[in-house]
Amino acid sequence: MAKLGPVLAQIETDFDASLARYIEFLRIPSISTDPACKDEVKRAGAWLEKEFRDLGFTAKLHDTPGHPILLAHREGASPDAPHLLYYGHYDVQPPEPLELWDSPPFEPTIVDGPHGKRVIARGAVDDKGQVMTFLEAFRAWKAVHGALPAHVTVLIEGEEESGSESLPGFLTAHAASLSQAAAAIITDTNSWDIDTPAITYRLRGNVYVEVTLKGPSRDLHSGLYGGAVVNPVNALAETLGQLHGAHGRVQIPGFYDGVAELSDSERQAWAALAFDEAAFLGEVGLTQSVGEAGYTLLERLWARPTCDLNGMWGGYTGPGSKTVIASSASAKLSFRTVPDQDPAKLVEALEEFLGQRTPPDCSWSLELFGASAGILVPEGGPLMQAARSGLADIYGKPPAMVGCGGSIPVVGHMKEKLGLDSILVGFGLADDRIHSPNEKFELKCLKNGILSHAAILARMGDVSA
Amino acid sequence: MAKLGPVLAQIETDFDASLARYIEFLRIPSISTDPACKDEVKRAGAWLEKEFRDLGFTAKLHDTPGHPILLAHREGASPDAPHLLYYGHYDVQPPEPLELWDSPPFEPTIVDGPHGKRVIARGAVDDKGQVMTFLEAFRAWKAVHGALPAHVTVLIEGEEESGSESLPGFLTAHAASLSQAAAAIITDTNSWDIDTPAITYRLRGNVYVEVTLKGPSRDLHSGLYGGAVVNPVNALAETLGQLHGAHGRVQIPGFYDGVAELSDSERQAWAALAFDEAAFLGEVGLTQSVGEAGYTLLERLWARPTCDLNGMWGGYTGPGSKTVIASSASAKLSFRTVPDQDPAKLVEALEEFLGQRTPPDCSWSLELFGASAGILVPEGGPLMQAARSGLADIYGKPPAMVGCGGSIPVVGHMKEKLGLDSILVGFGLADDRIHSPNEKFELKCLKNGILSHAAILARMGDVSA
Repeated sequence: MAKLGPVLAQIETDFDASLARYIEFLRIPSISTDPACKDEVKRAGAWLEKEFRDLGFTAKLHDTPGHPILLAHREGASPDAPHLLYYGHYDVQPPEPLELWDSPPFEPTIVDGPHGKRVIARGAVDDKGQVMTFLEAFRAWKAVHGALPAHVTVLIEGEEESGSESLPGFLTAHAASLSQAAAAIITDTNSWDIDTPAITYRLRGNVYVEVTLKGPSRDLHSGLYGGAVVNPVNALAETLGQLHGAHGRVQIPGFYDGVAELSDSERQAWAALAFDEAAFLGEVGLTQSVGEAGYTLLERLWARPTCDLNGMWGGYTGPGSKTVIASSASAKLSFRTVPDQDPAKLVEALEEFLGQRTPPDCSWSLELFGASAGILVPEGGPLMQAARSGLADIYGKPPAMVGCGGSIPVVGHMKEKLGLDSILVGFGLADDRIHSPNEKFELKCLKNGILSHAAILARMGDVSA
Repeated sequence: MAKLGPVLAQIETDFDASLARYIEFLRIPSISTDPACKDEVKRAGAWLEKEFRDLGFTAKLHDTPGHPILLAHREGASPDAPHLLYYGHYDVQPPEPLELWDSPPFEPTIVDGPHGKRVIARGAVDDKGQVMTFLEAFRAWKAVHGALPAHVTVLIEGEEESGSESLPGFLTAHAASLSQAAAAIITDTNSWDIDTPAITYRLRGNVYVEVTLKGPSRDLHSGLYGGAVVNPVNALAETLGQLHGAHGRVQIPGFYDGVAELSDSERQAWAALAFDEAAFLGEVGLTQSVGEAGYTLLERLWARPTCDLNGMWGGYTGPGSKTVIASSASAKLSFRTVPDQDPAKLVEALEEFLGQRTPPDCSWSLELFGASAGILVPEGGPLMQAARSGLADIYGKPPAMVGCGGSIPVVGHMKEKLGLDSILVGFGLADDRIHSPNEKFELKCLKNGILSHAAILARMGDVSA
C-alpha cells in the first residue's frame, strides 16, 4: 500500500492528458446497432488495442460474428499476485434524437455544472468514460512503478448496446485462459452519489415470456355472439388479473420457492442508505410506492421478485369502435428473479397457473424470450474486501453495498462460462442521462474512478492469489 | 283477404320478370363506403325511384350530406287503411377480397344449390334482394287490383353499410309526415330457416366505451422500477378481470337494474325453436357455450346483457422482448343492453366501478362511442298480428318470434325520431354470406319474400287505421 501514494499523485499530475485521451476516444462514433458505423466501432476497438499495447499489454482485437472483442493481458509484478479480469464495452447507444442535444454527440464538450466541469458526449459515461477509469489507473501504475500489482486481463467488447451476442461464445472459446482469473471487475454501474462510492452486489435476473390465449376459430361479432361464447380478451384479463393477490404477492404456486429472505444486517444497511424515495418516485410522476407489503421500496427493487405485464393486446385497438370478439389475446410478461429462484421452475409454474385457468375450447401458447437467475456476489471475499477498502481509501468512506433491480447479463456470463464472481464497481451517477440526449460524465467522477481503480489494484495486489 | 289469391298467382306468373329486374338492380355497384362509387350509389337510388314511379308512387331521391334517400308514397285503396312505412337500403358492402369470389360480385350469376337455384352477387340479399321482396309485392297488387290495400310510404337509404349518418337527421326533418305511419316494416333480417319465417321482435342495444388507465409520467424500465411502482397494464388486467364474477354475472353494481326477466311463455317458445347450438358453436370452432348461468344460449344471446372487451392494449406489443412498464393501458369494452336497462346509467356505473379500483397515482379516462338501449317490439299489436298471419299464409306455419343479439340502429331511430314500432320481417338465411365473398340469395327465399309481403299487406289492409 505504500506504493499507492505516488500513483495517486501521478494521476493528479497526468489528469489533463487523461482527459485529452478520453475525449479522443469519445470522438469515435462506435454505435454498435448501426450497420453504417461498423468501421467506426472497429476503430474504437483498435484505439483501445493501441492504448493497451502502449501500456505493455499483449493486446489483440478479436473478430467475432458481430463487432470485435479486445483482449489484453499484462502479468503483474509478482507471480503470487491475483489475476483479475476487467470488463467494459467500447460501443455506445445511438445518439438520436439529435435535435435534443445541446452539442453534437460525438464532439465532446466540457461545460460547467453543479459539481464542477462535466463532459457532454454520447458514451461520456456508458461505457467509454468508465473504461478510461481503469485504463488510466493502469497507466499511472506503470508510469510510477513500471508494473502492475496484479495480473490483469482486460476484455472490452463492442456489442454491449446491441445485446452482447458474441460474448457468451467468445467466453466459452477462451475459457481455458480467462477462467484463470480470480474475479471479474466490471465497470459499468453507478456510484451511490457523487461523494459516495458503491459496489453492486445483487442483481435480479429476468424470465420473459409471451403468452397467447386462443379461442374461437375467427373473430366474431360481439352482438351476434356476445354473452354466448368465450371472449379471449376477457379471459386473458381475468387470468392475468389473478397474478397478484392481497399484499401484492404473486399468486403463482411456488413463485417464492428459494427466495432468500434478507438478513437483518442487509435490511439495516439499506435503510442506512437513506434512499430518497420521494425523489425517485417524483421523477416519474408518482408519489407512492406500490408492491409487495412488508418491504421497503429498495428491498422490493433489489431483493424481491416481480411479475410485470410488459405488454398486452387483443381485439380492436384502432380509433373508434369495432364490435368484435377477438379469436385470441396475448401478453408479454416478465418475472424479475432473485437468488435463489429457479427460472426454469418459474416458467413451469406459470404454465401450470395458466393451464388451470383455461376457458372451455381455449388453449394457451407460451414463447420464452429468456430466463436468467438473480445474482448475489458474496460480500465477504478477500477481493471484494479489497475493492471496498480501495474505494474507502479514495472517498474517505466505505462504499454503499447496493443492489440493482435490473439484470447485467455479463455478470451471469462470467459466472456460467468462466466460474467467476463479478465485482461491480462503477462511477456513473443516476442523472448521467445514459442512452439519452446530453449524456454526461462529471470530471470529478472520472478522476475519482481512476484514483479508485488505482487504489483497488493496490489493495487487490496484497491479496494472496 | 279474398283479393290475395290472384296477387299470389300474379307473383308466380311474373317471377321471371321480377328476377330480371332484381338482376338489373344487382348490377349497379352501389358501394357506399367507396368514394369512387358515389355516382353508382346514386344510380341505384335513381333506379328505385323510377321503379316506384312506374308503380304509381310519388317518388323522390332526396340529397343528403351523404348518399341520397329515396322517399316514395302511394295512397291505399281505402282512406281508412293503415299507413305503413317500409324501410330498406340500396347500398352494399365492398366486395373485397375479390379473389375469393367464384363469379364477379356485380355480375349476378345463377347457380344450383341444395335449395334450388340461387343468385350469387354482392347485395344479393343485403339488402337489394330484400328490397325487391316488397317492391315486387307492391307491383303484383297494383297489376291485379290497381291499388294497394294500405297507404304505403317507402324509405330506402344508401348509407346503411357506411353508418346511416344522414338517416337520423332526415327522419327528424321529415318527422311530420313520416310519423303519420302506424308502424315501420323493416326488411333486412333473416328467416329462421328456409321453411320457417321469422319476425325479429327483440334487439339488444350497445354501450361502447374506451377506457385508459394512466400511471407513471413515462414508460419505465421494468428492472429498474419493477416491484416498486404501479404497472398500469397489470392494474388494467386486474380491474377488467373483475368485471365478471361467479356464474358469469357482470359485477358492476346496478348492471342488471331494469333488466326484464323472460316470461315463461317466451322461454318455452324459444326452447321450441330447437336452435342447433352445436352447429352455431361448431361453425366458429367451439363446442361449449360460455356465459351467464341459468339461461340457454339463445336466452343469453337475445335477452341478457353482456360485457365484452372488444380490444385491449398497453406496453410493448412488437416482436421479442422489451423490459418496459408502460405509462398507460387501454381497453375498448361494450355492453350489449336489453330492455329496460338505462344506457346512461350503465356508463355512470362503469365509471364508478373503475373509480373504486384506481391504483395510487393513477387516473382513468373514458371515451363514449355510443349508448343505445335494447328494443322489445310488442308481440301482440294488430299490425304485428297481421304480419304473423301473413307469413303463416305463405309458409303454412307461424313465424318464429326471435331476438337478435346485435343492434339494428334504424329500429332505434324509428322509435326515437318518429315514435314508430318496427316490424322486422326479412327473408335471408344464416348462410347467405352477407358482407363476405359469394353472397347469395335463394330464389326460393326471394319468391317467398314477395309472396309474404303481398300477404302481409293484405292482412294489414284489414286492420283499422
